[in-house]
Amino acid sequence: MARINRKDLLKDTIEHFDIISQPGIVPLVEAMKSMAFSSRDLYRAADIFDRMLRDNECAVILTLAGSLISAGLKKVIVDLLKSNMVDAIVSTGANIVDQDFFEAMGFHHYIGSQYTDDTVLRDLHIDRIYDTFIDEDELRVCDDTSRLIADSLPPGPYSSREFIREMGRYLAKNAKDKNSIVLTAYEKGVPIFCPAFSDCSAGFGLVVHQLNRPQAHVSVDSAKDFREITQIKMMNRETGIFMIGGGVPKNFTQDIVVAAEILGADAPMHKYAIQITVADVRDGALSSSTLREASSWGKVDILFEQMVFAEATLAFPLIAGYGYHKKGWKNRKARDFSGKLDALNRGAGMPQPKVQKVRAASETGKGKARGGKVTV
Amino acid sequence: MARINRKDLLKDTIEHFDIISQPGIVPLVEAMKSMAFSSRDLYRAADIFDRMLRDNECAVILTLAGSLISAGLKKVIVDLLKSNMVDAIVSTGANIVDQDFFEAMGFHHYIGSQYTDDTVLRDLHIDRIYDTFIDEDELRVCDDTSRLIADSLPPGPYSSREFIREMGRYLAKNAKDKNSIVLTAYEKGVPIFCPAFSDCSAGFGLVVHQLNRPQAHVSVDSAKDFREITQIKMMNRETGIFMIGGGVPKNFTQDIVVAAEILGADAPMHKYAIQITVADVRDGALSSSTLREASSWGKVDILFEQMVFAEATLAFPLIAGYGYHKKGWKNRKARDFSGKLDALNRGAGMPQPKVQKVRAASETGKGKARGGKVTV
Amino acid sequence: MARINRKDLLKDTIEHFDIISQPGIVPLVEAMKSMAFSSRDLYRAADIFDRMLRDNECAVILTLAGSLISAGLKKVIVDLLKSNMVDAIVSTGANIVDQDFFEAMGFHHYIGSQYTDDTVLRDLHIDRIYDTFIDEDELRVCDDTSRLIADSLPPGPYSSREFIREMGRYLAKNAKDKNSIVLTAYEKGVPIFCPAFSDCSAGFGLVVHQLNRPQAHVSVDSAKDFREITQIKMMNRETGIFMIGGGVPKNFTQDIVVAAEILGADAPMHKYAIQITVADVRDGALSSSTLREASSWGKVDILFEQMVFAEATLAFPLIAGYGYHKKGWKNRKARDFSGKLDALNRGAGMPQPKVQKVRAASETGKGKARGGKVTV
Amino acid sequence: MARINRKDLLKDTIEHFDIISQPGIVPLVEAMKSMAFSSRDLYRAADIFDRMLRDNECAVILTLAGSLISAGLKKVIVDLLKSNMVDAIVSTGANIVDQDFFEAMGFHHYIGSQYTDDTVLRDLHIDRIYDTFIDEDELRVCDDTSRLIADSLPPGPYSSREFIREMGRYLAKNAKDKNSIVLTAYEKGVPIFCPAFSDCSAGFGLVVHQLNRPQAHVSVDSAKDFREITQIKMMNRETGIFMIGGGVPKNFTQDIVVAAEILGADAPMHKYAIQITVADVRDGALSSSTLREASSWGKVDILFEQMVFAEATLAFPLIAGYGYHKKGWKNRKARDFSGKLDALNRGAGMPQPKVQKVRAASETGKGKARGGKVTV
Repeated sequence: MARINRKDLLKDTIEHFDIISQPGIVPLVEAMKSMAFSSRDLYRAADIFDRMLRDNECAVILTLAGSLISAGLKKVIVDLLKSNMVDAIVSTGANIVDQDFFEAMGFHHYIGSQYTDDTVLRDLHIDRIYDTFIDEDELRVCDDTSRLIADSLPPGPYSSREFIREMGRYLAKNAKDKNSIVLTAYEKGVPIFCPAFSDCSAGFGLVVHQLNRPQAHVSVDSAKDFREITQIKMMNRETGIFMIGGGVPKNFTQDIVVAAEILGADAPMHKYAIQITVADVRDGALSSSTLREASSWGKVDILFEQMVFAEATLAFPLIAGYGYHKKGWKNRKARDFSGKLDALNRGAGMPQPKVQKVRAASETGKGKARGGKVTV
Repeated sequence: MARINRKDLLKDTIEHFDIISQPGIVPLVEAMKSMAFSSRDLYRAADIFDRMLRDNECAVILTLAGSLISAGLKKVIVDLLKSNMVDAIVSTGANIVDQDFFEAMGFHHYIGSQYTDDTVLRDLHIDRIYDTFIDEDELRVCDDTSRLIADSLPPGPYSSREFIREMGRYLAKNAKDKNSIVLTAYEKGVPIFCPAFSDCSAGFGLVVHQLNRPQAHVSVDSAKDFREITQIKMMNRETGIFMIGGGVPKNFTQDIVVAAEILGADAPMHKYAIQITVADVRDGALSSSTLREASSWGKVDILFEQMVFAEATLAFPLIAGYGYHKKGWKNRKARDFSGKLDALNRGAGMPQPKVQKVRAASETGKGKARGGKVTV
Repeated sequence: MARINRKDLLKDTIEHFDIISQPGIVPLVEAMKSMAFSSRDLYRAADIFDRMLRDNECAVILTLAGSLISAGLKKVIVDLLKSNMVDAIVSTGANIVDQDFFEAMGFHHYIGSQYTDDTVLRDLHIDRIYDTFIDEDELRVCDDTSRLIADSLPPGPYSSREFIREMGRYLAKNAKDKNSIVLTAYEKGVPIFCPAFSDCSAGFGLVVHQLNRPQAHVSVDSAKDFREITQIKMMNRETGIFMIGGGVPKNFTQDIVVAAEILGADAPMHKYAIQITVADVRDGALSSSTLREASSWGKVDILFEQMVFAEATLAFPLIAGYGYHKKGWKNRKARDFSGKLDALNRGAGMPQPKVQKVRAASETGKGKARGGKVTV
Repeated sequence: MARINRKDLLKDTIEHFDIISQPGIVPLVEAMKSMAFSSRDLYRAADIFDRMLRDNECAVILTLAGSLISAGLKKVIVDLLKSNMVDAIVSTGANIVDQDFFEAMGFHHYIGSQYTDDTVLRDLHIDRIYDTFIDEDELRVCDDTSRLIADSLPPGPYSSREFIREMGRYLAKNAKDKNSIVLTAYEKGVPIFCPAFSDCSAGFGLVVHQLNRPQAHVSVDSAKDFREITQIKMMNRETGIFMIGGGVPKNFTQDIVVAAEILGADAPMHKYAIQITVADVRDGALSSSTLREASSWGKVDILFEQMVFAEATLAFPLIAGYGYHKKGWKNRKARDFSGKLDALNRGAGMPQPKVQKVRAASETGKGKARGGKVTV
């Protein structure tokens, strides 16, 4: 067998889908309106996304799970951000740090194959994501840049949003590829949350940072994440969620309705909710759980909810492109939730909660009991 | 339609599977050894679990994703803990707080149905997990207990492990049902990590805690989680992982090999790795990614790895029960990693890392390059 | 790379699961009764199977799709046949001819691997079924034996059942391994239908047979299959179906309710129905369609129906073993439907249908309208 | 609860996707070329379809499983037929009879919902396919029309192709909707095979036909189906297969390579093969089996093979539309395989096979051993 070398395997780069140059998406999706199965569901999800965008009261939260950026979906998200079609992002760390920040540093993902021998890849320092290859040496540079950013910050607890904002600030000066979610979100004031932040490339950098500075260092406060995103719900009653995959980002984002309610806010359920997933409902896990199930928890309204059974690289460009070319977003403005959260954190302190404890569902429960006319 | 009331729906409790009373699992699993598909894979996974337990050098890490405790798998895990068959746990927050801690407080999960109308459930304050029901009012008590625990602690950054240890301490005094993972792990010194800790019932309590105490409060440091679990790998070279589902717990646990290597430790890949999952590899996400793919990243060795395509409530009792009744664990002792981490944190400070920065893969890479005989 | 040879790859034989030696299945399945997800569903399916067996009016039809015999499930089915727990079988051709008849001829399936290079296998005349290997040369002997059987029969149209009965007759004389579904069904008078009969090893033999005898040859009448199995429903009102996988066998068997109704018979819906499958309902195909959906067609009653989300090699031994060891079948007798169908075909001709045409649903529709009190 | 009536549920008709009016499909699919996961796979499958069409030696066989016509994919297939992009079809009976022939008679499928109560539907004579409704009374008219066609034919064994050709002849005179696969295939001489023909609406009609005419009636010879489609392979060496779903149509069509080889023909493996499916390979069944696995059987070449993980209503319009608008089919002519098979059946008899028995793989095996340089 001929020797395989790194150059042969790290040659053809992943290229990102561009929704702007695909106006044909609109008639395509509309042609699926009266079909069945996933096509009809996809039309309906696209229509709900368009409704979210036309609803000027509605803040749109995008959740990201799965390897989306490495798969060519980065520019779709950047274009949504630039068009004010997304007001907050909740993501796994890998999409934001290992993949988007990584590419902004000038590195690439490569077209690979799921049939390659993994022991060969290991010996060549090539990491595999299904059919995609990554240069492990480049990823280590990304890890270490997270450390440098942590080293540059005043010690203390940060939300993942605050840390990612600093990554955006870094990119504003140093990005080699400006087509970046972290950078664009930074410029737009769109907060990005990674509720399991150390579970990514930045985690490696932060561990080195903390061990080097045992007495005073940056920490990433998971509770502050939840507090901040709940404050968004409290600032902006109406919300719609566009979920790619499930996982922690899905659960975390659905939960803010209950958190805001517990804090005494007049927080209705998410008015719009769409999810693209192939997860199977029969395993009982959160990723696959239906949006109707979320409704039993008082998190998602059922009037405008739609799940789409499709792998994300097929369905996300179609739904996002439909929303883009339907132009329902033309009247939207940047909400700058990141700036508003910074102000809250900086200012006279956080808004005083109206309650001192977690109240029982029967004490709150607007989202649920609506008048208490419940048979108990 | 007759009025449905809460009592009718919250009547029959979920009962937990007991591996100890099922010695018939051993011949059953052995009868699958020379079949095909999932049965043969299940035998092989059970055999690898038994090998992990017989390998006295090997620390066993259990990862939990999906709604496992509410589904009746709590006692399986408690019995693994009592028998020193698990040395550390990495989990989603829901399993640990919303489900295990919740039941330890005396509450229950109920047999429900996926066909029930979710708007009716919402009005009755009943939350649904596929075919299981929960009393939302009881869950709020659980949320608030997390707040009480946070209120009782000195302010500062905690790892999720440290916070969960305090939950165990609380249960040691207050548990109504002592058959609890959190309590047993506390007693055994088994660390439990929830890398996205605020993404669960405790998150609600922590948000209230922080908003009530804006100047000085408990925070949950995601990076400290990663640092501590990496320190376990550094204390105990050989590791095996038993993964139920994927998600953050899977990724987080696989990553510690690379983290330890970055820190200069002589940390080999996970020697044993088994995963029960129904996730489909074709979506390219981490949950479904093969253990061979993890090998390309230098995280998992391929000699003893096996994925089992099965929903967890079917496969986990069989594999765990096989390991239990084969008695390979009889010579194992409690490793008290939690106590050792406490000592590290308390003591002269953390062990000095050997490196000041994240090193390139080509600088470290024992797990990978093994001598550098790589064609580049 | 060392040369791989046939002997290395065709070495370890698949061994069949034996439910009789596993009485531990009963407490195991019962321990899943009050859990959630697949475990609870599996208990419920096992309980429904036991109910079918205790219902002396009920004929049990087993449907087989997927590679079950090659996977080690042959003996489970043989033991069900021997215990009068199955009264008719509807299957894909591969299970019956390529796998069961093939093994009865003395050939074996071999433990293989899904990672083997398929081009290497092709060069070695080794066929792969996921993780299982077959000697292609032996399969050709099986193909040709089907031809020999066809050559030995009087020309004319046969139902697949009639042809498979002849295969059983052949095995009664020639079987090298008597542990065979085809042989045991022959001895028990249990009819086996393969509605797409030429879609298997026998198809190759039949094509050679027909081309060698263009003027007068055996043909396999698909309509006769449907007629005969419908006649079983007409002879035996109450039916229960145990479906492994979906496909043609599932559809074909569900349809007989409607066919019997069209023919004027007093044919209720299948009273019991269980299915083991991993097929996903969201593709809209028949294999994954719910048994409740079948109820809309008037085919399956919803009182005792249960689908189990599991790969068959895990779930089938447990459900079948539960039914076996609960002994609900002790009072059952062989129904000899094959003999009765032979008599019908041989005798004064087929029973005269009560109708001359397919009647409208509104003209028949007992199963549906039940009294006609329908708002139209 | 207000009374639901039939008119409310049978109101909005399924509308068929029109690839001709969607030229935007080409840039859309091309934009997926350098992404990852399903999008890249979809591009590659579309490219292979285009290659099949440009290869003038290549006969294209389309296989259909799943509820495709009821889902709005009828016109896609009709347009492929009209453009000589498909030379033969192998399908489940439901697509051809219950759905296409049914619509040609003037009936419709209706937009429904998977959440509707199936017992209500049953009472209203409405059949459900996931999210689609059908009027059961209309379906009975379809059943009976199959009987009328059978009654009109000379008794004897027919291939399903011959029977479906008669259905096409019927539609040429009686179709209310000429946009029909059965009708267009009839006009174009494109054979349609349903290897499990009685497993559909026609089965009901045929059973009534046979019972009314016990002495002399139409039978549907499954072996003749296999013989005829194998003869197509023998007439036309090079073949490409485009598979929607799996099931019997997939297996049947892959098998013709081996059948032709057994008959002594110089029949290479299918040169091109693409499949759209969501079936999971881990169940070991044929539907989900990889095209590489088919290569071990000597059925499919691996140079141009691609599976696409997507529900068919999303992926089929994109791949078919890509092939259409790339115009690779412009030089193709109708092959009239149906006419040629009729001639064979009518003429001096079938071509004499070169062998009298099924030969061993080692005797044939060009597709496999290629020169016999095999280590045994």
